[in-house]
Amino acid sequence: MNSFTYCVPTKVYFGTNQLCHLGEELKRFGKRVLLTYGGGSIKKSGLYDAVVSEIRGAGLELYELSGIAPNPRIDSVREGAKLCKEKKIDVLLAVGGGSTIDATKWMAAGACVEHDPWDFFSKWSPVEKALPVCSVLTLSATGSEMNGGGVVSNPETKDKIGRVESILRPRVSFLDPSATFSVSKYQTACGAADILSHIFEEYFTTEKDLYMLDCCMEGLMKTVIRYAPIAMENPTDYEARANLMWASSWALNGFVNGGKQHSWSCHSMEHELSAFYDITHGLGLAILTPRWLEHCLNEKTLFKYVQFGVNVFGIDPALEPLAIAKKSIQMLSDFFFKTLGLDDTLTKIGIGEENFSVMAKKACGGGTIEGFVPLNEKDIETIFKACL
Amino acid sequence: MNSFTYCVPTKVYFGTNQLCHLGEELKRFGKRVLLTYGGGSIKKSGLYDAVVSEIRGAGLELYELSGIAPNPRIDSVREGAKLCKEKKIDVLLAVGGGSTIDATKWMAAGACVEHDPWDFFSKWSPVEKALPVCSVLTLSATGSEMNGGGVVSNPETKDKIGRVESILRPRVSFLDPSATFSVSKYQTACGAADILSHIFEEYFTTEKDLYMLDCCMEGLMKTVIRYAPIAMENPTDYEARANLMWASSWALNGFVNGGKQHSWSCHSMEHELSAFYDITHGLGLAILTPRWLEHCLNEKTLFKYVQFGVNVFGIDPALEPLAIAKKSIQMLSDFFFKTLGLDDTLTKIGIGEENFSVMAKKACGGGTIEGFVPLNEKDIETIFKACL
Repeated sequence: MNSFTYCVPTKVYFGTNQLCHLGEELKRFGKRVLLTYGGGSIKKSGLYDAVVSEIRGAGLELYELSGIAPNPRIDSVREGAKLCKEKKIDVLLAVGGGSTIDATKWMAAGACVEHDPWDFFSKWSPVEKALPVCSVLTLSATGSEMNGGGVVSNPETKDKIGRVESILRPRVSFLDPSATFSVSKYQTACGAADILSHIFEEYFTTEKDLYMLDCCMEGLMKTVIRYAPIAMENPTDYEARANLMWASSWALNGFVNGGKQHSWSCHSMEHELSAFYDITHGLGLAILTPRWLEHCLNEKTLFKYVQFGVNVFGIDPALEPLAIAKKSIQMLSDFFFKTLGLDDTLTKIGIGEENFSVMAKKACGGGTIEGFVPLNEKDIETIFKACL
Repeated sequence: MNSFTYCVPTKVYFGTNQLCHLGEELKRFGKRVLLTYGGGSIKKSGLYDAVVSEIRGAGLELYELSGIAPNPRIDSVREGAKLCKEKKIDVLLAVGGGSTIDATKWMAAGACVEHDPWDFFSKWSPVEKALPVCSVLTLSATGSEMNGGGVVSNPETKDKIGRVESILRPRVSFLDPSATFSVSKYQTACGAADILSHIFEEYFTTEKDLYMLDCCMEGLMKTVIRYAPIAMENPTDYEARANLMWASSWALNGFVNGGKQHSWSCHSMEHELSAFYDITHGLGLAILTPRWLEHCLNEKTLFKYVQFGVNVFGIDPALEPLAIAKKSIQMLSDFFFKTLGLDDTLTKIGIGEENFSVMAKKACGGGTIEGFVPLNEKDIETIFKACL
């Protein structure tokens, strides 16, 4: 068991009617607010009006940047960073899902340097300062509302790169489950797959970690498996939306890590899919995960599949371990592709093998992903092909 | 489901060899450090020397206050607050278990007011300022290392009163499981009972809360039930000590609350036992809890006992609900009194019914504890009597 540091100072207002605290919280950081968001959905839902009214009501100066796309682009980050400098912004408020929050974090960092923000990803330029970021969440998926991570795409170089810096962690996040009532069935399903994948990336390990965290991760997984179908069936089910929302934050705020050192596998592979084909991140993860689990199953890893199958899917522990492992992968596939109704192959979403070799090389940086099971170029290409 | 605010900014260094960060962390708050501790155990274990060496190595000025007793007294708090003022202390470092950390928090608050620190409890005087507190934990039990609560006793008035103020939450806590290797079997058992009770106080509710948190609470309970006996059997089992330590923090840092509004029952009753008889808090909780659960079992609460019995103790869900409920109480009693070997009655620890009536009245403030099931004076006296 490795030592670790745990520090998650984000203040979370969870529930309905919490937006009344927005003005007082933003005010702590200064007067000039940059509001960032994606398309028009927050205008349709009325959330935009509510947020603007709180900001104006608190006597703050409001600036806006909209049009942040899913798989957010470095161009948005550049634009936001420039605006922060020009308008002398004190605090950024991201209203949206993970893409908006991710991009906003890097605007906050870009505002404090002279170089091109893409250098944070291409040259790993240091992040020594950043403007404070707050968020109002509208999609349960990425956990960006409570962590320091942000993934940014560069369509020119076909790169999609994530980086985590604790200084970018939102200071205050507003999580109102009812703000996700308008999320479509498809996006709810993709969000559920994303949350599960964040947990899998930590859960599937051969390192000896805290049993306590395994129990909590199993609880988070059961929560997603229980409530995602309910939210898809009845989008305004508050209990379902609340459970998904709070689970999404805890899947990726650092809590479940507990000092594990291995690299993440499915996310590395999926980022290549999104970078080359601009697909929804959660969908790519759903297609990849069962194939990745099949690839990693061996004598040394078997115990973890058994634990997963028994504790999460309730498979009879009296069965043969290998049978439990295979059944657990099957039950996960069924959840993704039958219960959530996601497409089960890359072929179905129009992706062929034409770029697999270069994508595989990029996914492992030409070396090895030191994950649950080490994956080299060949392994990754094999997994990609199994997804066809 | 109620709305809530979640904010736990404590930075935790978890694991061995983390004390090297102590100097740099204390330095952030100033130059003059008040080191507080209890008896001599940290001198025997070498922890005292290690801490002092880090403080001196960082060039900080060291002051000391020792002799903080279990069920810490207001006199210690008064003494510490006075010392903070006299020596112009910048930061307090509590090295010990919950008693030391609790008392130190109130010294930090007392240092910032002119009135007697007991006014914080007798008159609920406001806590507007406090010196920063850090901690080095040596006992897995109270969760004080990651929350803003502190319980202080006043032997003169036979009061033991707890109060939570977020400003008192430790800024930085060092959790080294190996620092608990020297904790006795008995104290390990009492600590386990305390952790479990913190979870029970939140878990046993008829409010509709987050299923996700119920899963995590069940995971924390299973962790304690699994590892407490291992730590008692083999005190230097790192995995067991680590799981108990991290579970103790998460049982009571706010995470599992999730907006629940009910009052705590067993802690209110136990504080009277400790106030009148100065017994170990965890022991009092262990004796009270099964009787409290028996008292609260009714048609409306039954479902929660069933959930508890099936998910935590693995009782067959096909049994009759009432049979599951009764079996779950029995299994919990067996855990406390057989597995952990704690005394199972108040009689055995020399407590008779002579003060039950006045204790019951104080426990509910002459009214009702609005807990899992509302408890008035008569109910509480009945529960006390069932413990004889």
